[in-house]
Amino acid sequence: MSTTLITGIAELVTCDDEREGELGIVHDAAVVVDGEQIRWVGAAAQAPDADERRDLGGRAVLPGFVDSHTHLVFAGDRSAEFTARMTGEPYDGGGIAVSMAATRGASDEELRSLIGARLEQMRAQGTTSWEIKSGYGLNVEHEARSLRIAKEFTDETTFLGAHVVPPEAREDRAAYVDLVAGEMLEACAPHAKWIDVFCEPNSTYAFTGEESRRVLEAGAAKGLGLRVHGNQLGPGPGVQLAVELGAASVDHCTFLSDDDVEAVAGSDTVATVLPGVEFSTRMPYPRARDLIDAGATVALASDCNPGTCYSNSIPFVIALAVREMRLTPAEAVWAATRGAAKSLQRSDIGVVRVGARADLAVLDAPSYLHLAYRPGVPIASAL
Amino acid sequence: MSTTLITGIAELVTCDDEREGELGIVHDAAVVVDGEQIRWVGAAAQAPDADERRDLGGRAVLPGFVDSHTHLVFAGDRSAEFTARMTGEPYDGGGIAVSMAATRGASDEELRSLIGARLEQMRAQGTTSWEIKSGYGLNVEHEARSLRIAKEFTDETTFLGAHVVPPEAREDRAAYVDLVAGEMLEACAPHAKWIDVFCEPNSTYAFTGEESRRVLEAGAAKGLGLRVHGNQLGPGPGVQLAVELGAASVDHCTFLSDDDVEAVAGSDTVATVLPGVEFSTRMPYPRARDLIDAGATVALASDCNPGTCYSNSIPFVIALAVREMRLTPAEAVWAATRGAAKSLQRSDIGVVRVGARADLAVLDAPSYLHLAYRPGVPIASAL
Ligand SMILES: [Zn+2]
Ligand SMILES: [Zn+2]
Repeated sequence: MSTTLITGIAELVTCDDEREGELGIVHDAAVVVDGEQIRWVGAAAQAPDADERRDLGGRAVLPGFVDSHTHLVFAGDRSAEFTARMTGEPYDGGGIAVSMAATRGASDEELRSLIGARLEQMRAQGTTSWEIKSGYGLNVEHEARSLRIAKEFTDETTFLGAHVVPPEAREDRAAYVDLVAGEMLEACAPHAKWIDVFCEPNSTYAFTGEESRRVLEAGAAKGLGLRVHGNQLGPGPGVQLAVELGAASVDHCTFLSDDDVEAVAGSDTVATVLPGVEFSTRMPYPRARDLIDAGATVALASDCNPGTCYSNSIPFVIALAVREMRLTPAEAVWAATRGAAKSLQRSDIGVVRVGARADLAVLDAPSYLHLAYRPGVPIASAL
Repeated sequence: MSTTLITGIAELVTCDDEREGELGIVHDAAVVVDGEQIRWVGAAAQAPDADERRDLGGRAVLPGFVDSHTHLVFAGDRSAEFTARMTGEPYDGGGIAVSMAATRGASDEELRSLIGARLEQMRAQGTTSWEIKSGYGLNVEHEARSLRIAKEFTDETTFLGAHVVPPEAREDRAAYVDLVAGEMLEACAPHAKWIDVFCEPNSTYAFTGEESRRVLEAGAAKGLGLRVHGNQLGPGPGVQLAVELGAASVDHCTFLSDDDVEAVAGSDTVATVLPGVEFSTRMPYPRARDLIDAGATVALASDCNPGTCYSNSIPFVIALAVREMRLTPAEAVWAATRGAAKSLQRSDIGVVRVGARADLAVLDAPSYLHLAYRPGVPIASAL
């Protein structure tokens, strides 16, 4: 396979623990890739020869962003609901039924085209890997279809039949939980790596701690890895349940007690914060600073979805993490690359080192600091 | 001149008072342009013929954004200062001297190239008109040079010799004010339409109410229109001075008393809010909601500058205005187009009507609502 030597890298953020400093930065760097893998990383002055050369003219290069939490399989438009919320209506998860109806009504080709357009936007902003959840199908046929289509776009697919109880099942929640943990899981597991649940005991739409446990244990028995939407709308058992069951990640973490912070920090579960959601719902931001200070592994992702955050911009999320959650720019960049990769238990992405995937982001700027310094400006793109 | 019929406009935001509704929206619209001017606006079904056709495939079209407050003439990098501030250091205007030194040291060609790159980023995000201030030259030669170069890029140039007292003049502030109001103004007036002053009585760098009045009155006597940086860092006389002197705009308005709100609302002075600054300095947001409710004309702009807001994204500023200042999406869009045009006393931009400039923004979305709904996502571009 033909190799390319990439030069003109003023600042290379590697996120490689074996290099010095928080981000393992190499200045005046070069990278050799073969299209699939990184073959060499180091100072430009020591770079080996390659078949082709590409000069970036003094830019910053980072691991491509890893968006470890997205809901890309949906149809329909909820901009009016967003506008109503911004002018006073609270969010309670009820609007998910609107996306469900539109998603069920869309053809496979329409869904593929919508996902493709969203991914193109993401690559244009520097994201090179993505997790995709189901959760707008909410019956056996459409959850399985959502995952089958999602799997055409990524290996990181997550079964989220337990997103909300759909309108037609509200008379008998227990029957819906049985369905999710039984027949729906059976149909979806072949297309999924992960199982996730929206654990929110005080919402009429989402799932209690016990319901969540039931679904997660069934998924684990089928060999799926565990993820949890926890403590988004209020305090609850989601975070501690995720830790107890050894989930790879607990996501949102908007309402955390000190015990929750301690539980995550003492575990291998990654805390994935999604501040685009708090921006778009006007909620308080998660205690990501406290999580990091307590020793937890923190990931940053977009939660791109039509209800609570229709942003798929990781640079925007990094700027919010710095402004609103007081992460340093370095912590935010690490969380959106290496941290997000850890939440997916992947060591081949979110890092620039020999053998990792050749997934790089380049900035129209000399340093990663510009991601927070230039909020809203599209300076990042996939290389 | 050859004409183009633009169709496939799902939603046309005109901001034309003669049409119905806050934004004068036409659905399924068409526009005819001749390259310089808008020649026809209306429903697609009634559209006249034209030499060429362009089909936008169901997108939203708006007046191109008018960025009525920028400091684009600067060299140097202050990302490290930004990072320090985000991790705890307050902003007091002192870093302007860093940009001053770099700007004085840059060649004309370097400055042109930097401005050109920034404007290209702005057009890529839907901005089609811009004001540009001097203010990093801070002596006769370099203020005049900054404006001479700025004028190559826009008619809306603003002399801001009274940005801060430069380090070499701090021993004798009065002499610097004399210089700005005398020899510097003389040298700069031929290249400027506006004069502006950073009125901030509690900063060691900026100007008191009396110093500001002196500079503004001298500018007015030279035929320049008036703009004021007022009440950014704390309460002060800037807003009321702007109103008293009949300034076209008073900008920032971060710290407003009820009297200030009332004064602006009872005047023809536009209040220009710049929420990207509050985002990037972690300050409280201006009372834009109160200004609108009191009847003031509000404009939204970027303040793109290397110290307090190195964002030139009007979509980002619109999202902030909705999230943080509780403007409706319609109010925010109006403020970034028609409102900003009014702050420049221009009736040919920020509006889509026959005779206006053919400056349009197109969204990769069916409605202007998506500007706030999709924060950080580069959906807008100049048509
Ligand atoms: Zn989610
Ligand atoms: Zn300014």
